[in-house]
Amino acid sequence: MDERTARIALACAVEPGTPGMAERVAELGPAAVLHEVLRAGGPPPGTVPGRISPEDVPAMLATMARAGIRVLVPDDTEFPSQLSDIPEPPLALWVRGPLDLRVAAMRSVAVVGSRACTPYGERATGAIVAGLAGTGWTIVSGAAFGIDAAAHRSALAVGGATVAVLACGVDLAYPRAHEALLCRIADEGAVVSELPPGSAPLRHRFLARNRLIAGLTRGTLVVEAARRSGALATANRALEIGRILMVVPGPVTSMASSGTNRLLHEQVARAVCDGEEAAALLAAVEGSSPSAVPTAGGASTVSAPALSEEARRVLDALARRGGRSVEEVAARSGLPAVTCLAHLGILELHGHVRRAAHGWRRCG
Amino acid sequence: MDERTARIALACAVEPGTPGMAERVAELGPAAVLHEVLRAGGPPPGTVPGRISPEDVPAMLATMARAGIRVLVPDDTEFPSQLSDIPEPPLALWVRGPLDLRVAAMRSVAVVGSRACTPYGERATGAIVAGLAGTGWTIVSGAAFGIDAAAHRSALAVGGATVAVLACGVDLAYPRAHEALLCRIADEGAVVSELPPGSAPLRHRFLARNRLIAGLTRGTLVVEAARRSGALATANRALEIGRILMVVPGPVTSMASSGTNRLLHEQVARAVCDGEEAAALLAAVEGSSPSAVPTAGGASTVSAPALSEEARRVLDALARRGGRSVEEVAARSGLPAVTCLAHLGILELHGHVRRAAHGWRRCG
Repeated sequence: MDERTARIALACAVEPGTPGMAERVAELGPAAVLHEVLRAGGPPPGTVPGRISPEDVPAMLATMARAGIRVLVPDDTEFPSQLSDIPEPPLALWVRGPLDLRVAAMRSVAVVGSRACTPYGERATGAIVAGLAGTGWTIVSGAAFGIDAAAHRSALAVGGATVAVLACGVDLAYPRAHEALLCRIADEGAVVSELPPGSAPLRHRFLARNRLIAGLTRGTLVVEAARRSGALATANRALEIGRILMVVPGPVTSMASSGTNRLLHEQVARAVCDGEEAAALLAAVEGSSPSAVPTAGGASTVSAPALSEEARRVLDALARRGGRSVEEVAARSGLPAVTCLAHLGILELHGHVRRAAHGWRRCG
Repeated sequence: MDERTARIALACAVEPGTPGMAERVAELGPAAVLHEVLRAGGPPPGTVPGRISPEDVPAMLATMARAGIRVLVPDDTEFPSQLSDIPEPPLALWVRGPLDLRVAAMRSVAVVGSRACTPYGERATGAIVAGLAGTGWTIVSGAAFGIDAAAHRSALAVGGATVAVLACGVDLAYPRAHEALLCRIADEGAVVSELPPGSAPLRHRFLARNRLIAGLTRGTLVVEAARRSGALATANRALEIGRILMVVPGPVTSMASSGTNRLLHEQVARAVCDGEEAAALLAAVEGSSPSAVPTAGGASTVSAPALSEEARRVLDALARRGGRSVEEVAARSGLPAVTCLAHLGILELHGHVRRAAHGWRRCG
């Protein structure tokens, strides 16, 4: 049994974020740990995502592939490297959608908040996300009601990249009312889970999911959250793993902003009022994780990785004089516009491209 | 000619905040500087508060006393000592009202903001000021439209102490529409100016006035301010002289909160959502100026000053067991309730009194 197969079978047999599991896998290898788990009977039935014997993994992967679902393990090129430095990193990720997850996550921000948001929170989310997604930042959220949905929708509306991280399998729609939204994200962005398809959204899985949202991104923006709110759990995770925490100030008379304003009072979060302020803070984050991207002309010691074939196609679709719109770049490169936008953002950070008056142009 | 007379005559002959003036007075003495100013013809006519020859000062003071106006110079007991460590400290202060300015300023906070405030700003001011003024904090502001007026009114409404610092003489009402408000402040709190009675509210005098508001207080709270706002000038003054700066978060969609939210984004101000949060920050300020008051049981090296006769009367009106209300303390001490409240706040800081379930009680 190869490592990849063992790892995928193991990911089907244990709960996300099981304490000590990642360490054990690093020590003994996935095959030995899988053997151990299967022999011990594994965690109690009902809590386990799904049991599968290693020899059935290839057939499962083939079935999933027909449904447009791929699986990523840490050694895969598309696996986001910044997930390796969070506590209990995922054993595997299931992904639906055209976005390259590693590329999308390099320049990404989590936008989360209250499910019971106010019209103010929805409006603020729309404006700030439009500013971020429109300039190449990938918007990562949890597809929940309220702020999460507003964030995904605003990103889609400006043709930006968005990633929904679920607490259930990527083949299920949770909440049900967001089935159409999740289909659209799967068509244009990416729907991600560390649970195998078919897994139900059990309560404890949301906490594990929140650590993934915080870990995938450079920073977390909380738009609205009451004093006791799931969004604050994601905020705490972001702080714990050294990501930047940002909040949108709100009226002190609004319960929906009481948790976010408290984070400001305690000086653990930075206040941001628009996409530009958020982008500036996110761009300033360097070296906080192995995936840190050097900024153009910056003093980063992380060397720019070699360009991928896709990135090269995007670069070749640009001219040195005169800007080209994202649509033009998409047509010339033969890549979807959203993929082009993600690459343009990263190419900009590396100093390869620059924003011109009317679109993008190549540097140097 | 005695020093006090010379200083008062000099204060009538020069503009507040004239660069180098305070230094010159410290070096040569007020009489010599006054002689110099009068001989040189002084600043251009129209800009000078009012010229008076030293021999007329006693008659002027008598006239003012009949109008309920007193004048304070730095050597007077009632002169707030923290004004001595600001740049260009005032030569003299004119005061109308029953509050002892030194006592009131020891535990005081500036509450300022936009003249064109929103209903949200007015509501937030009301709630936060009620929390502060109701627990013995003196509310200092500028009697302008908007946040200033809301701050004074809320302090008066809860029977708290409030001080209006004007950019004109204390005998004038500016703005005119606030004549009744200023009369009430003069009846129950204090109206203060470093300009002699009769001085007009000229444009440059507002900047000098703002430094006084920031300098008199332990900290400045800005409730609402647009990006270009006079309240931000006061905020900058507070920072320059090492006072704590606090702001009330507001909707990012509101122009009236754009300046305050910017201060949060830049991390130069602390966010506060209610009176309790503001009081905790203010109470934590120690040793930032020579007037710093040691907190009860704190490690301050500033020794508690001997009790004034008034403070002694307030202390004697309390019992060691069982709380007494401010009204009860007022009745027993024969002092106005607002004066009692100001003393109680300072006595609490020194550890002489403690807040009980129903009022105040004596310690030790």
